[in-house]
Formats: sequence, C-alpha cells, structure tokens
Amino acid sequence: MKKTDLSNASIHRLIQKAGAPRVGDDAVEELKIILEEVAKKVSREALELSSHAGRKTVRAEDVRLAVKRLFRE
Amino acid sequence: MKKTDLSNASIHRLIQKAGAPRVGDDAVEELKIILEEVAKKVSREALELSSHAGRKTVRAEDVRLAVKRLFRE
Repeated sequence: MKKTDLSNASIHRLIQKAGAPRVGDDAVEELKIILEEVAKKVSREALELSSHAGRKTVRAEDVRLAVKRLFRE
Repeated sequence: MKKTDLSNASIHRLIQKAGAPRVGDDAVEELKIILEEVAKKVSREALELSSHAGRKTVRAEDVRLAVKRLFRE
C-alpha cells in the first residue's frame, strides 16, 4: 500500500510557480516522492535531535539543526 | 503576502510517520518552508531542463535530472 501525504494539487502549484507553462502528471508524482523522501530524512534526524535534547516534542530548532546536518555540510 | 502551498496537516503526518511522539506547530511550519524551498529549486532546474529539451511540458525526467544535478554531486 502506498499512502502519500502531500496533495498532487499542491505540488502542481509549486511547479507552476516556477514558471512552467505546462506540468506533466508524471512530474508531479516524481516531485512528490522526492519531497516526501526529504521530509522523512529531516524528520528522522529532527526526532533524534529532540530526544537528545530531552524532549518528546519535535520543535522547529530540531528541524533546523537536522537540515543543517543533512544538507549544508 | 505569504501563500503557502503544502497543508500543515500533511506535513504534520510526515513528521509523525518518522516516529515523533509529539510534533510542535513550529516544527511543522519550519519543515513546510524547507520543503517549499526544495520544490522551488528543483522546479526551476526542471523547467530549464525541459526548455533545453525543446518541450513546454515539465516531465518526470526533468525533475529526476534536476534533483541529480542539485543534490547528488
């Protein structure tokens, strides 16, 4: 079972916003998969950082540090 | 004006899926901003690649090559 979380309409709008005259459904599916992968990676890292800080709640600071560790080095 | 495209509920679910016991609203906002930034970058690159291929429609292959160029080198 493949339950996706981001709506196709929202992803379509994001690609259109970049200035695309036409957006293929396959492009929407592809970008959706990619964004969900990024969300998964960042969330796992953020969760680990929140536990490390002694919290049960994931906070913006965890997400920020997770992104920094994953993508900006 | 700040019009965001991804729903807070969907981002909340993605963080929960990673196993977070509680998810702060601030974490949802932060991850949303990040995912929209990624979408914008990938979309712009994909649009350029589709034009380069002589198409007006952005396709999955453009998105895949865009991601490859942006993140996997």
